[in-house]
Amino acid sequence: MKQELNIVEQKYNVNLEDRIAKNGHEPLVIWFTGLSGSGKSTLANVLQNHLFNENKQVYVLDGDNIRSGLNSDLDFSENGRIENIRRISEVAKLLSQAGFIVITAFISPFESDREKAKQIIGSCFREVYIKASIETCETRDVKGLYKKARNGEIKNFTGLDSPFEEPKSPDLIINTSETSIEESLAQLLTLTNKI
Amino acid sequence: MKQELNIVEQKYNVNLEDRIAKNGHEPLVIWFTGLSGSGKSTLANVLQNHLFNENKQVYVLDGDNIRSGLNSDLDFSENGRIENIRRISEVAKLLSQAGFIVITAFISPFESDREKAKQIIGSCFREVYIKASIETCETRDVKGLYKKARNGEIKNFTGLDSPFEEPKSPDLIINTSETSIEESLAQLLTLTNKI
Repeated sequence: MKQELNIVEQKYNVNLEDRIAKNGHEPLVIWFTGLSGSGKSTLANVLQNHLFNENKQVYVLDGDNIRSGLNSDLDFSENGRIENIRRISEVAKLLSQAGFIVITAFISPFESDREKAKQIIGSCFREVYIKASIETCETRDVKGLYKKARNGEIKNFTGLDSPFEEPKSPDLIINTSETSIEESLAQLLTLTNKI
Repeated sequence: MKQELNIVEQKYNVNLEDRIAKNGHEPLVIWFTGLSGSGKSTLANVLQNHLFNENKQVYVLDGDNIRSGLNSDLDFSENGRIENIRRISEVAKLLSQAGFIVITAFISPFESDREKAKQIIGSCFREVYIKASIETCETRDVKGLYKKARNGEIKNFTGLDSPFEEPKSPDLIINTSETSIEESLAQLLTLTNKI
């Protein structure tokens, strides 16, 4: 029994290299940024499905699983928005350290917030600009948010009365006005094919 | 091409059942509670190693990866401690929804906080009391924290000048003063053998 005890005690903790070896791929944080209605959630789910079926460990962080839980205490003030992105970044980092390919689908309209996300997450951060004109997004208006914003029911709505700062040097730009879902997926896979 | 498009669009999102099928096990949140020096981190790592080598998806949340990142903005006031546990609970829930067996290793001395954790995390929550007398923990004093607390360098130290509320009905109690690491591991595996 003494020997067994020593064996247990001498084992190293599970580290990221162990997880990479087991999963067969490195972690990655694919950070989507773009207007409401640009196609972030759609593409996040299409990409997740594809990677999952390739037997990769993948998870999407979006409003559905963040705003109602971890960030339910935050408002939409400037400080609230900054803290929202900071926490998302920290959780994405944790998931990447657990071996996951993480896809984040948040508008994240400010360059400074995305820059902070990149700093927190580190070398596995990839910025993807899901691009569509405000006219296209407003025409789609899947959630009816643009209509509400135009009616004054939502204030500080990105693209209308709050700015969207386009990424300066994203790893990828997908113009969803012109690009099919298959082609968008193919472009996204150029990011994960390298890991 | 049209057909392919439809196939992509008709796919359901990856859900928890898909992850369970792929991982070969259900998620679980094994919530350790106990005094500083009771053996939480040691047992968390031994359990993680064992489950990882059984090809399970497992991750430990502890002070190392939470306090320096997600919760770096929190102080040790009452509100800070409550928010600390709330966020840990939400992150553990997210990881469980991503399919993981999560082991949390925090003192979490208050019944109300652990009750809230249970409410947030839901049916996969398991409370494990890592039990050792204050005398044993103080003798171990691996991190030198008891000495600092006795010297007045740390205030509100659990077990000395701040209470530890013992769990009323934990799923498991491990008395580390009397139980070897192998035996402790065997007891912990009774939780994961059921999933």
